[in-house]
Amino acid sequence: MFYPEPVSKLIEGFMKLPGIGQKTAGRLAFYVLNMKEDDVLDLAKALVNAKRQLHYCSVCNNITDLDPCHLCRDKRRDGSTICVVQEPKDVVAMERTREFEGYYHVLHGAISPMDGIGPEDIKIPDLLKRLSDEQVKEVILATNPNIEGEATAMYISRLIKPFGIRVTRIAHGLPVGGDLEYADEVTLTKALEGRREL
Amino acid sequence: MFYPEPVSKLIEGFMKLPGIGQKTAGRLAFYVLNMKEDDVLDLAKALVNAKRQLHYCSVCNNITDLDPCHLCRDKRRDGSTICVVQEPKDVVAMERTREFEGYYHVLHGAISPMDGIGPEDIKIPDLLKRLSDEQVKEVILATNPNIEGEATAMYISRLIKPFGIRVTRIAHGLPVGGDLEYADEVTLTKALEGRREL
Repeated sequence: MFYPEPVSKLIEGFMKLPGIGQKTAGRLAFYVLNMKEDDVLDLAKALVNAKRQLHYCSVCNNITDLDPCHLCRDKRRDGSTICVVQEPKDVVAMERTREFEGYYHVLHGAISPMDGIGPEDIKIPDLLKRLSDEQVKEVILATNPNIEGEATAMYISRLIKPFGIRVTRIAHGLPVGGDLEYADEVTLTKALEGRREL
Repeated sequence: MFYPEPVSKLIEGFMKLPGIGQKTAGRLAFYVLNMKEDDVLDLAKALVNAKRQLHYCSVCNNITDLDPCHLCRDKRRDGSTICVVQEPKDVVAMERTREFEGYYHVLHGAISPMDGIGPEDIKIPDLLKRLSDEQVKEVILATNPNIEGEATAMYISRLIKPFGIRVTRIAHGLPVGGDLEYADEVTLTKALEGRREL
């Protein structure tokens, strides 16, 4: 113990955050000591408020300080489409496109038998309940393009199809600005399969 | 603005820390939302306490919650040696060696005319005052081995020598575990110059 206690407490606190080891935590802690007191107080307050004021939207399970969240409240959105994503940040990513006008459903994870996460552990039951209540015509599955995301999409699509609802999956292919030469073969195969008439 | 306000405030707060951009701040903020409330409160409290309880030691200028700091209070240390370092973290690095038994003096910077930092902007006057008051026989200059650190060491050594005090500089050379092949020529030159009889 070479640091004064307030410093080592702060370092321990920072080390609980992801991707922050002892060295980075030390650097951040010493930076905090030289920050303006107001900025430090703001950060401390923001931490507490984020934890205390936020909860999950009772409709879409997105993280929100209102209930229902501002997206579910927005009556101008298209009630016939629900976009299913894994995490709240995926909602933000989708919103950034300004292309999607429907509502969201956040699963908070993906089916992953390896980690012991089954369909009941993520918000799939809530989704089914919404589909039986609301006038949904299309469910867009925007889970991540990896094994867990694909498995989750497949699972949900099999559950929903009997309802007579259209189920779509976001396209796989080359990222815009990417380079054919550096694309992995799975992505390239998917891009070929998903080719469209011009 | 796609995030609820408490989230975006937290992201803004994190972005004030060094090396944390928008993406990392977002990742940290979402991690905080899933942390245990106690851990979040501890971190918030640690931030405030670190800022409020810490100040500079009136003797050595190290960061401390006591005054004088626990190192300056320690009467078992050797009062005839002062080790001069640039930053409080350098004190920690020196203490980790468990080799140095004297007292410290923290400059809080180095002379850097390019950045407009002169001898009066760092704690050099305090050091001179200590030297005239205390029974110091040796000053070890452990500033960083770069241009600013070297310049600072040279400057201090010229100031102190007239006092009849021994002034030493920590050795330059190859880092332990390093590889001769990959050493830059300046380091290798210094290592040669500093060679010692076996």
